Amino acid sequence: MRGSPRKGGLKITLEELMEHKLDWEGTIIPELKEIVGEENVLNHVIDLYVYSRDASIDTGWPAAVAFAHNTEEVSKVVKLANKYEFSIIPRGAGSNVCGGVIPAKPDCLILVVARMNKVVDLDLENFLITVEPGMVCLDLNNYIEPYGFYFVPDPASDKTATIGGMVNNNSGGIRAVKYGVTEQWVMGLEVVLADGTVVHIGNKAIKYVCGYDLVSLFVGSEGTLGIITKAMLKMQPLPEVRLVASGYFDTAFAAGKCVREIIRRGFDPSGTEIMDYKTLKAVEEYSGKVKFPECGAVVVVELDGNREDVEMRLDRLELVFKEMGALQTEVARDAETCEQVWAARKAAFPALTLRRPTARMEDVSVPLENLPVMFQKIDEVSKKNGIEIATFGHAGDGNLHPILLWDERDPDQHRRALQTLIDLWHAAVNLEGTVTGEHGIGVSKLMMMPVEHEAAVLELTKKIKQAFDPKNILCPGHVIPIPGQKFFTEEDVS
Amino acid sequence: MRGSPRKGGLKITLEELMEHKLDWEGTIIPELKEIVGEENVLNHVIDLYVYSRDASIDTGWPAAVAFAHNTEEVSKVVKLANKYEFSIIPRGAGSNVCGGVIPAKPDCLILVVARMNKVVDLDLENFLITVEPGMVCLDLNNYIEPYGFYFVPDPASDKTATIGGMVNNNSGGIRAVKYGVTEQWVMGLEVVLADGTVVHIGNKAIKYVCGYDLVSLFVGSEGTLGIITKAMLKMQPLPEVRLVASGYFDTAFAAGKCVREIIRRGFDPSGTEIMDYKTLKAVEEYSGKVKFPECGAVVVVELDGNREDVEMRLDRLELVFKEMGALQTEVARDAETCEQVWAARKAAFPALTLRRPTARMEDVSVPLENLPVMFQKIDEVSKKNGIEIATFGHAGDGNLHPILLWDERDPDQHRRALQTLIDLWHAAVNLEGTVTGEHGIGVSKLMMMPVEHEAAVLELTKKIKQAFDPKNILCPGHVIPIPGQKFFTEEDVS
Repeated sequence: MRGSPRKGGLKITLEELMEHKLDWEGTIIPELKEIVGEENVLNHVIDLYVYSRDASIDTGWPAAVAFAHNTEEVSKVVKLANKYEFSIIPRGAGSNVCGGVIPAKPDCLILVVARMNKVVDLDLENFLITVEPGMVCLDLNNYIEPYGFYFVPDPASDKTATIGGMVNNNSGGIRAVKYGVTEQWVMGLEVVLADGTVVHIGNKAIKYVCGYDLVSLFVGSEGTLGIITKAMLKMQPLPEVRLVASGYFDTAFAAGKCVREIIRRGFDPSGTEIMDYKTLKAVEEYSGKVKFPECGAVVVVELDGNREDVEMRLDRLELVFKEMGALQTEVARDAETCEQVWAARKAAFPALTLRRPTARMEDVSVPLENLPVMFQKIDEVSKKNGIEIATFGHAGDGNLHPILLWDERDPDQHRRALQTLIDLWHAAVNLEGTVTGEHGIGVSKLMMMPVEHEAAVLELTKKIKQAFDPKNILCPGHVIPIPGQKFFTEEDVS
Repeated sequence: MRGSPRKGGLKITLEELMEHKLDWEGTIIPELKEIVGEENVLNHVIDLYVYSRDASIDTGWPAAVAFAHNTEEVSKVVKLANKYEFSIIPRGAGSNVCGGVIPAKPDCLILVVARMNKVVDLDLENFLITVEPGMVCLDLNNYIEPYGFYFVPDPASDKTATIGGMVNNNSGGIRAVKYGVTEQWVMGLEVVLADGTVVHIGNKAIKYVCGYDLVSLFVGSEGTLGIITKAMLKMQPLPEVRLVASGYFDTAFAAGKCVREIIRRGFDPSGTEIMDYKTLKAVEEYSGKVKFPECGAVVVVELDGNREDVEMRLDRLELVFKEMGALQTEVARDAETCEQVWAARKAAFPALTLRRPTARMEDVSVPLENLPVMFQKIDEVSKKNGIEIATFGHAGDGNLHPILLWDERDPDQHRRALQTLIDLWHAAVNLEGTVTGEHGIGVSKLMMMPVEHEAAVLELTKKIKQAFDPKNILCPGHVIPIPGQKFFTEEDVS
C-alpha cells in the first residue's frame, strides 16, 4: 500500500517510531522549540508521515521535523544533536530521487532549510551570487535573468529543487554536457560542521589552489559531512541565442550513435537529449497538444552562442543527423519553438509517472562509446523481467534516465521491478559506467557502493566521514552504511 | 651564494644531512636498491644537492633520491618508508615554483617518477587517455594531436612540467579561463596511499556522483595524500582555428579594465593574457627579433571555434579594445602569427629571469572586479620596497604572475624582496583573492595558510591529512606545517 514503508525502502516501523517519539517529548522537542520557535517543530505522526518520504521510492520515519531560519539556528540544532546524540538530515524540497532525505535510523531529526531562501549577496562585477540553501533553482534564475545571467546547472526539477540539495547531490542537468555540473559552479560555501562549528570555504578568485579543494569535497557529499547554509555561485552570461535541432531515429541505439558522433565532431552543444518512443508517447498523452513523428527515439541538440554562428552550426548539425540515418529532422530557429521542445523534455518524468502506480527514475551513466549498447541493455533487462522501462536523458555525457514503471501493490511485479533495477545497475557498471551520474547514492543505492568501488576506496570514504563527523550525527546510513542497516539488497528479491 | 640553502628556504644544514646520510647507509639505502635497482638510488652529496631545489627559491637537502619505474616499485618504497618511518616526496620535473618538492625534514627520500612516462591507454572513442605521472605535458599533446585532440591545461612550463605535477598542483595555464583547470580534466587516478596500498578512483563516465569526489580531493593536494601513479585524462577535440587579437594600453590598470569588460560581454575567450611594459621589454631583449609598440601593457585575447565565427568575433573584439582606450590593436588571422604571439608570452618568465640574479614568480589571484586595482597594488609594493616587479598573467580569471627581481647576495635587497613578497600576498588577500591561483602552497607559502583560512578550515585540512596519512610519510611540512618547522615568516624580514 502506498502509505506504508515499502520493500526497497527502509524498515523503520511505526512502533519503532512511537518509541522514539515518546523519548523526545520531554527532552529534545522543548529544546528544539526554544531554538527555532514553538511553531517550527513538528512531531505529530501525520506530519512525520509527510517527511518520511521524498521523490524516491524509499521511506523512513523521522522522530521530528524542525524548520531553521538562519545559520545560527542550524548550528544550535547541531549542537543539540551532539548533546543528545540524535541524528540530523537537512532537507530542502525533498525532490531528490535517491532517498537522500530518508532517515536510516529512527532517532533522526529532519531539519528543513527550505525557508532559508534569501539572496545574501549579488556581485554583478564578479558574476557571483550568494544564496541560502533553500533558494529554488528556478527562482534563482528568475532573479538573475534581468541582469543578463543564468545559473548553469538545470535539473528538470528546477521548479522545486533547492540550491542546497543541488550542492549536496552535485546536480547535473541538460547543460552539463557543455558547462559541467554543480561542482564547477560553486565558488564558496558556508557549512555547519557536525559539531556545530560554522566554516567558510572557497574564494571569490576564479583560480584558487590554496590548500585542499574542500568545496569539491562538500559538493556531492549528500549532507554527510556538513550542512550547507550558504553557497556562493558563479553566474554565466546569457548567450545571444539558444536554438535546438531534433533528429528522429528508428531506434534508440541509432539515436545514441548519432549523439556520440555529434560530440566527436566538436559541436560543443549546450544540450544533447534523447527521448525514446515510450517517453514520446507519454509526453503526447500528458500534453494533449504535442505530436511527434513516428520513430524509435529523438535526439534534441541545443547550440548556444551568437545567432549567426549558431544558425550556421545548426545547418551542419542537420546534415549530421541525416548522415547518421535520421528519419526526419526539425530545426527550431525561434525562442518560442525551442521552449516548447524543452517543455516537452521536462514533462517526460511527470508524464511517465502517470502511466503506472509506481515509477522509479534511474540515472545510470556510461562512457560515450557504450551509450548505444546501454540502450540495448535497458531493453534486455526490461524484457527479461517483464517490467516496462521508458528512457530519456542527457545522452551527450552518457547519462540516461531509464524510468521503471510498475505496480508495487503486486508482490510479484514488485519483486521483478527490483530485480530489473539490480540488472540495470550491473549493466551500467559492466559497461565501465556508474549507477549514478547525477542523483547520488543516498540510501537507495548503497548496495552498489562495494560493486563500483575497491575496498580501499570505501575505506578512504569512511575515513573522511569519521574525520568530519566522528559521532555520525549527519545523515547516518547515507553514502556509507551503518552497522546493521537494512537496505535494499539482492537478498530482498531472491 | 647561489649554492647554499638560502633565507626564504628551509634550513636543513649540510651537517644535519650528513648525519642522516650515514644513518641510511647500512639500512634504507640497500633495501631501496633492492626495490628500484642498484643504479636507481642516489645519495652522493653532489646528487643530493641537485635534488635539494626546484624552480622555487626554497631549498632543502634530501637524504637520498630514488627513481621508480612502476606502481609496484612506488608501493614497495612507501611500505619501506612505513617500516623505517622516513618521509617521501614524489618528484616529476621539479618545475613547480612553490617549493613543492623541497624536503622540510632531513629524513626525506625524493622519489622521482619522471621515468614513469608511458601512455597506458588511449581511448579515442571516449576522448580519454591514461598516462603515467612522469609524462611531460607537451609530449602528451604531441602524442594526441594527430588524433585531433589536445589536453587543455597548459602551463607555460609545458615543455618540462609532468602530468603528475600538474595533477598535484591543479595546474591552470592560459586556456583555464574558458575550459577550467586540471581538476576538470582528470577523470580518474591510480594512487599509492601512505601505507603503500594502491587505489583506483574515478570513472570513465563523464557524469559520476557515486560517493565523495575523491579525484578532486587528490588533485591539488600536492602529494600530501598519496602518490599519483596513473592519471586518466579527458582530451578536448582541437578547434578548427584559434586566433588572437592584441590591444596595447597606456597602463596595466587600463589593460585590466579591458579584460574585465571582454569577459563581461561574454566573448568566452580561450585565453586572455596581460603582459606589462617591463615584461615586454624583457621579451624583446630575450628574443632579439620581436618588437612591441610603445605601451604600458598589452592584452592578448585568443578565440577558438570555427573560422567564420571566430573571425566575426575578432572584429567585435577589436572594437571593444578601441572602446576601452587601446593605443593600438593587432589581429592575427593566421596560425603562424598566433604562434609567435604565444611564443612571446611563454618566453616572459625565462626572459625576466635573465635580468637579475634572483627571480621569484608569484601567482596571486583576485576577483575580476579587483584586477585593475591589483595592478596598482603591485606598483605600490614595488615602489615601497624598492624591488623591481614585472607582471604578466592570465588576467581573464584574475590570476597574475608578478615576477620579483633582485640580487639575493645583497642582504638588504634580499630582506626587501621578502618584504615585497609579504606585502604582495597581503594585498591579494585584502582584495578578496588568494596568494596562489595555480602554483600551490608547497613549503613556500605556508605562512599564508592561516591568513587565508579560518582556524576551523585549517583544522579540517589537518583532519583529512591525518585520516589519509597518520604517520605523515608523504610530503610532511607541505600545505600543513610540522611541529617546529622553520619556514619563511614575517620574523625573517623584520
